[in-house]
Order: sequence, then structure tokens, then C-alpha cells
Amino acid sequence: MKDYLIGVDIGGTTVKLGKFNLDGVLLEKWDIPTNRSDHGRHIAKDVIDSIYSRVRMDAIKGIGLGVPGPVKDGIVLRAVNLGWGKTHLEETVRALLGNQDLEIAVGNDANVAAAGEVFQGAAKGCRNVVMLTLGTGVGGGIIQDGKLIEGAHGVGGEFGHIVIDTTHKFACNCGKAGCLETVTSATGIVNVAKKRLLEFKGETPLHSFESFSAKKVFDFAKAGDPFCQTVIDEVADYLAYALSIVTLSIDPDVILFGGGVSLAGEYLIEQVKKHFRPYVEPFIHEANFALATLGNDAGIYGAAYLVR
Amino acid sequence: MKDYLIGVDIGGTTVKLGKFNLDGVLLEKWDIPTNRSDHGRHIAKDVIDSIYSRVRMDAIKGIGLGVPGPVKDGIVLRAVNLGWGKTHLEETVRALLGNQDLEIAVGNDANVAAAGEVFQGAAKGCRNVVMLTLGTGVGGGIIQDGKLIEGAHGVGGEFGHIVIDTTHKFACNCGKAGCLETVTSATGIVNVAKKRLLEFKGETPLHSFESFSAKKVFDFAKAGDPFCQTVIDEVADYLAYALSIVTLSIDPDVILFGGGVSLAGEYLIEQVKKHFRPYVEPFIHEANFALATLGNDAGIYGAAYLVR
Repeated sequence: MKDYLIGVDIGGTTVKLGKFNLDGVLLEKWDIPTNRSDHGRHIAKDVIDSIYSRVRMDAIKGIGLGVPGPVKDGIVLRAVNLGWGKTHLEETVRALLGNQDLEIAVGNDANVAAAGEVFQGAAKGCRNVVMLTLGTGVGGGIIQDGKLIEGAHGVGGEFGHIVIDTTHKFACNCGKAGCLETVTSATGIVNVAKKRLLEFKGETPLHSFESFSAKKVFDFAKAGDPFCQTVIDEVADYLAYALSIVTLSIDPDVILFGGGVSLAGEYLIEQVKKHFRPYVEPFIHEANFALATLGNDAGIYGAAYLVR
Repeated sequence: MKDYLIGVDIGGTTVKLGKFNLDGVLLEKWDIPTNRSDHGRHIAKDVIDSIYSRVRMDAIKGIGLGVPGPVKDGIVLRAVNLGWGKTHLEETVRALLGNQDLEIAVGNDANVAAAGEVFQGAAKGCRNVVMLTLGTGVGGGIIQDGKLIEGAHGVGGEFGHIVIDTTHKFACNCGKAGCLETVTSATGIVNVAKKRLLEFKGETPLHSFESFSAKKVFDFAKAGDPFCQTVIDEVADYLAYALSIVTLSIDPDVILFGGGVSLAGEYLIEQVKKHFRPYVEPFIHEANFALATLGNDAGIYGAAYLVR
């Protein structure tokens, strides 16, 4: 009897694992450290050993895995944070499992997180969803007609590297400058605030901090500080513009915000909406934005969704 | 025996119709004038009558219809060029057909043209395709996993109304300014050239024309005129930028150019590629661009594809 789905979210520091029933109810979750030694070649075996130690393999319908890098047809093209170059992860996992008859699926972690929200989170039951994950970096994922868009080069949902800012042109890890990530991630929002602060002559509570977080900028903006409001205005405009182009392309049922920055909540949504409307009128009057609800568990839910 | 697919492309002046076998081979095509009187309320009946007069209804597997306006679930939200407000076209056609057991599908004309290229044109056999139609206006369509993306508000593939130009800000028919259509349609390219010509002190053969077409600008650019080359450079950059965002979102197998402007051919593709690369590196080194091949027949092919 195939009773369980296993969702695995492989990160640079820990691997999160979840055991779900076939309806997507999380029954048990745990994690193991990510062993990055020897170019991360032990990771797959560690994952399978850990599953073996907790669940009877013949009771598993499938194992889904999310990894921090582009994925195409079960092959991870690269995953710098794991020490991986091109890695045939689906094949490797299948070999480790021997004759077990179960499904294996691999996806990019940000894409998989979007799938998680569709499975059991904020977009439950939706067929067409865009999710933007605003954390240390900016990632994303698109679910179209219930399926993850992987893309011809494995870069579906790679919103963080849309070139969007032509004012500051902060250098991006990807080698370009002005990527969405450089101005709307947690780090990016601080970048924008610091840069604007240099030009700013007036008063703002930010002046009293030697260093500050994106959360501080949001908190002061919410509390009415005009300087922080202009920073959030700028950030919201970058997000709104990028999402307007995504919307005039695929017109999703809902756009979700996840990641640490999304903890700014409804305020973030309201600011983005305000800037979004003029870009999409008269075609769309009211688009549907929402906050992701699964937090750090989105990855294991989404990985399980891939093999549901 | 169901032997045929009927593809119908309803335009503001004529309705094109095509009879296809089930493999998508065009057997016969014809057209009828579009009767826009009485708010276009005779159009659907004219279409069905015309099909009746040529094909045995019980030999038809399905009738697909493309219309110039947004479509959602068989309902045309509006089609100004036909005089239509919200029109339940699928329902109307079904009522006109009485008890006939056949499939009916309705789509936006630019979306449907993209489907045509997937069915029997430049993207034959591809599952994930973006098509940009550069004509008097700019339209587009996305086929994802073999299916048209209609969108939550019926605006899937509405690339022409992406706000892209912050320099000229030409007014767009949609009410906004700076839409992709205002700077990359046949009219848009002339707009850009005329504007740049006002600021230009040097020599260009364009000076000797009182009025000129987008084709002229392309022809002189190909022949080496530096002024026309800078105009095409600017136009190509708008296209490349918009398409870079589409690509970092859904990463299609191929991007097609259709419409009159695409007759500029490989030169257009080369110019767009040159500007596209810096926006998508290092994620994509070589994207796949191609020219549409079905011309004005793309609409009837795509309409037939919807009911294949």
C-alpha cells in the first residue's frame, strides 16, 4: 500500500524532510545537516538513508526534491550552495533506491515553494499561480494549469534576475547590475535605503542606526516616516513593474509574496497594488495578490506536490 | 464520421474560414465580409451559415473561432472592432448549431495565431511557445504545455500593452502611454523614427520622404544608414527587454515574430538577439528566436488547433 509522499527541501545548510499522506497532510517533519564536503556528493545518499530510517520504502508513493539551482528534466544544472556542478539527481536517487517502484521528481527550490503554496497554502486549489519569494535573494515560481513551469533552460520563475533598476545599478551576484534582487530582496531594500539616505537632507529615525534591516525600513514606513515611505514606494514600484509584465504575459489567478520580506504583510501588498494598477490598466482593474502562508515549510510541501 | 476541423478568424473587415482534415492539413479556405451592423449581431449566424453552405455539419469534429478581443471561458469580454460588448460566443454558436454534436472553442485572435504556428507553422511540435505579432498593433500569445494561456482576465499574451518606453511616452489606444505597441508596431517604429529625426542633425535618406513606412526604416538600416540603424537599435532594445522578462518568467522553447514588421526577417532577429543577451545572462546564452511562417493564415490554423 502506497500511503505516503516524501518532500525534501535541500538547502545549503540543512535538508528539510517531510512525510505527507496522499491528501497532502504533513504527518512528520525533520531535518539533517547538508554535508557539502567532497563537492556535496554525499547529500543524495544522506537524504535516502534518512528516509529509510523513518519510513518503510514500499509505503512511499514518491519522493520529491527541491534544490537551490536550475533544474531541467530531473537534472540539476548547477547548485553552487551545495558544491554541485551538473548533477543527474533523479538518476542518482533512483540508483540509490535500487528496485523500489516509486516516483521521483526534482525541481528548483523557489519553483517548488510555489507548488507548495498551491498544494496546501495560500493558493490552494488554484491552477495558475505566480509566487515571488523575497528573502536574502529573490526567487520565484510559476504554476500554470497545475504544473510547474521549468523552462527550456531551467530558468522558469527566475524573477530575481530581471534587470529592473537603471538608477542605482547595484552589482548582482549573477554578474549583471540592477537585477530585481538587488533592489527588492531584504539586502536590496537596505541597499536602496542606504543609497537614498546619502542624498537625503531631512530627518528620519533611520539616521540613529549604524546598520538596519529591511524590516526596520518597513516598520518606520508603516509608522509614517516619509523617508522610509519613499524607499518602500521605490521598492514597490520595481516589484509592481516586473509583475505587470508577468501579468500581461500569463495573467495568473493569484500572485503570492513569500520570504522574509513578505512578513511586512498587507502593507507590502497595498504598496505594490498602488504601483501595479497604472501599468496594467485598462486590461486589469483588480489583480489578486496574497501572502504565502507556509513559510519555511513551503519547500517540503511543494516537493511532495511534485509526486502527489 | 468526423473528418474535418473548421478554423474561423473573425476580423474587423473579413471573416476568414478554413476547412482542415484531422491532421491539420488545410483543404479549403474562403472568406466572407464582416457584417458590423446592429453591433455585429449577425456575425455569428453569417459564420455558421457559411460553414453550412460548404461542409456537411455531421462531418465536422469542431469549430474554433478567433476574435479580436479578450476571451475568457468562451466569452468574448469585448471586441470593439466588431461592435461587440460582452458576448457569449461559444453559447451563441452552440445555439445556432442546434443539436449538432461538435466541439466549439473561442480564443483571442493573437493568441490563436500563436496556436496556429504551433499546429502547422514555425513552432510545429513545440510545447512552449511565445509569439509576438508586430503589425499595425502589437499582439501576442503563449502556448504552455501545448495549451493557450488565456489568463484570469483574458489578457494572456497581451504584450503590446506592456509599458516599456519612458522617453517618448507616445499615447496608446489603451489609454496608457509608452506601451510596447507605441514603439514597436509598424506605426510605432515610424513614431520613433519621426521623433528621432526631429533631433537629428546629420544626413539620412529618410529626409527625402515626406512620409515613410517601418519597412523603409528597416530597408535603409539594412543598407547601412546609421540613423535608421539607431532607430532599429532602439526598437530592438524595447522588444529585447520585454522578451527578457517574459523569458526569465516562463523560459519558452522558442520565441516567434509574426505580423508585417517580421517581414524584416533575420535582420530583426539579429538585432533583438544582440540586445536580449545582456538582459538574460548568465542564465541563458542562446535563446531560440524564429520567424512565423503562416502569415495571415495563422488565425484559421490556430482556431482549428483549438478543436483538434
